[in-house]
Amino acid sequence: MQNVYVLGIGLTRFGRYPDTPVEELARDACFEALDDAAVEWREVQAMYSAHVNQGVAAGQRVIREIGPSGIPVVNVENCSAAASTAVREATIAIGAGLYDLAVVVGFEKMATGVLLNVHPVESPETLMGMTVLPMRFALMGRRHMADYGTTIEQFAKVSVKNHGNAVANPKAQYRKAVSLEEVLASRMICDPITVLQCSPNTDGAGAVVLCSEEFGRRRGGRRVRIVASALTSDLTESAYNEFDLDLVRRAGRQVYERAGVGPEDLDVVETHDCFSVAEVLEYEMLGLSKEGEGGRLIADGATEIGGRIPVNPSGGLLAKGHPLGATGIGQIAEIVTQLRGEAGARQVGGAKVGLTCNMGMWSCCTHIFAV
Amino acid sequence: MQNVYVLGIGLTRFGRYPDTPVEELARDACFEALDDAAVEWREVQAMYSAHVNQGVAAGQRVIREIGPSGIPVVNVENCSAAASTAVREATIAIGAGLYDLAVVVGFEKMATGVLLNVHPVESPETLMGMTVLPMRFALMGRRHMADYGTTIEQFAKVSVKNHGNAVANPKAQYRKAVSLEEVLASRMICDPITVLQCSPNTDGAGAVVLCSEEFGRRRGGRRVRIVASALTSDLTESAYNEFDLDLVRRAGRQVYERAGVGPEDLDVVETHDCFSVAEVLEYEMLGLSKEGEGGRLIADGATEIGGRIPVNPSGGLLAKGHPLGATGIGQIAEIVTQLRGEAGARQVGGAKVGLTCNMGMWSCCTHIFAV
Repeated sequence: MQNVYVLGIGLTRFGRYPDTPVEELARDACFEALDDAAVEWREVQAMYSAHVNQGVAAGQRVIREIGPSGIPVVNVENCSAAASTAVREATIAIGAGLYDLAVVVGFEKMATGVLLNVHPVESPETLMGMTVLPMRFALMGRRHMADYGTTIEQFAKVSVKNHGNAVANPKAQYRKAVSLEEVLASRMICDPITVLQCSPNTDGAGAVVLCSEEFGRRRGGRRVRIVASALTSDLTESAYNEFDLDLVRRAGRQVYERAGVGPEDLDVVETHDCFSVAEVLEYEMLGLSKEGEGGRLIADGATEIGGRIPVNPSGGLLAKGHPLGATGIGQIAEIVTQLRGEAGARQVGGAKVGLTCNMGMWSCCTHIFAV
Repeated sequence: MQNVYVLGIGLTRFGRYPDTPVEELARDACFEALDDAAVEWREVQAMYSAHVNQGVAAGQRVIREIGPSGIPVVNVENCSAAASTAVREATIAIGAGLYDLAVVVGFEKMATGVLLNVHPVESPETLMGMTVLPMRFALMGRRHMADYGTTIEQFAKVSVKNHGNAVANPKAQYRKAVSLEEVLASRMICDPITVLQCSPNTDGAGAVVLCSEEFGRRRGGRRVRIVASALTSDLTESAYNEFDLDLVRRAGRQVYERAGVGPEDLDVVETHDCFSVAEVLEYEMLGLSKEGEGGRLIADGATEIGGRIPVNPSGGLLAKGHPLGATGIGQIAEIVTQLRGEAGARQVGGAKVGLTCNMGMWSCCTHIFAV
């Protein structure tokens, strides 16, 4: 496999777009990424598209908005990890020598509704009302508190950090700092998770232009190398027994092994904070802290910009927003921006190696990038 | 890229399964393919799943029925070409050296409803009622008749041939021969397409086990080599101007070039006869006849079993059935069966090289296989 690079990135501002077709959001992200990469649409040799619930032939419908093309289109779904899974697929194809230049576009309008219960209707999970995700993360959070002494305030501080980071991100849905008191006092969704500890409903799109070693060398530009990726799945255990995120742990170990780096080598991380509890658990699963010490990591400020290992400088899913099929590309766009040193007021100084962790409950896709 | 092989195939009988969850159909196809390949589920390193409208995390839901696993799952959608697109993706990943053994499973229950209109609501196509596919193929058929003198009887003969072939296929939805008179006299859907010239609503699942060169050599078995594939897309032209299937023409040319063979080297073809008209057009697009001479090819009997180039010995979509996300694997399973010499009464004598053409109106995926 030859090396593969991110040559360009594009994001719509994440938010709510009730009057804009999702294909137009996706098109805008593609145009921005193509401009950023300084390549023309007619040079693109393949498109991978990612979404969760945007209908048939979604990538083709995006191309219809961009302009004539007859290139291969692969539409990828993988829960909230759809976009990073699509990036991984495109990377494999370029690495194998099939294409020199491909676009990966992820998009979602949440208004169309997404059913996140994959448990059978008659399952214990559904009968107990565990049909949506806050319940599962609330249970994980409570168990973590019981096992390790993690506090409600530590979970809440994840939201404070990420909302604070998003103030400096023009692509974020929410750009207003929140205090610990505000997070704790906001409406309770499922104890200990309050509404400010939940990612919002978000519409949006993101695109990345990927290229081969040879194309990148020929064209120059601010390339960021995709060092390694990993993809894991899990839908075999009962929710009763799931108090950690083993699929994240496995996706972390695999990507570190393939990249030949460890968590201590990372300068910046974008991880899947669909709920505050998730980020704390992911610290541990990704080896940013020892298991059981995720609460202390956030409490100590280690994951703030300027801390030992900044996590979610973009504002994360909690504040930047979580348009399912676009989320993984939102993470990758942030890491690329950081590694290029173009993140402005939210820049992590001297960032050379970054990790993204995009989880979809039943899938987890990790990537390591480097300059 | 190293060589990739089909090591095992599995199909549910195509038909209607109102009381069987689609995950169970898919599981059964996987078990059959694993048995056929003589490999264990725990050896499988990745799953690619294909469907059009079967919900979130579909592949993971299938794994839940099969047994514990944490392997990478990629869910692929590409209209009716979803399954062959998924096979192509898995082939790329194995060819690139990521996996030695992967399962590709395609499945669909049509009862859940699939919207096949991708034209915008306010488009001329929709306003004229061209919201479903029979209208488009009827227009293509009428234009073909006007341009080339193709007859209604020639189109109808495709159905006669394919229903006749399906009699010998235990996996086919319909196993009853029909006469030319019956096809012509059946209910008119959209002139010149009668109901017996339309593929039926079908539930079903198919799976293939793919392996690397090295794994195949180590384990033996009746391997069929995936020589080449191609994937094209099209959603940029108005339906008004589409009287052929250029995306099929391009997918044919590309796969021939990559495989280093031409249409004259093929022994057997499975192509996408969603309507009788489609098969006639595909003869021409795939170079089985000159352009304009597809009607004569079917009239002359050249595409019957025993003819110069047998097409759809399985019964095709018209008689075997068309469970969208499983259709491409249904085609591949037939070609593999033919190249192994295991097709019984529908065997094409001495078949060594076969082609599949899986079209999804907005996508077309071709494969060439050889023993």
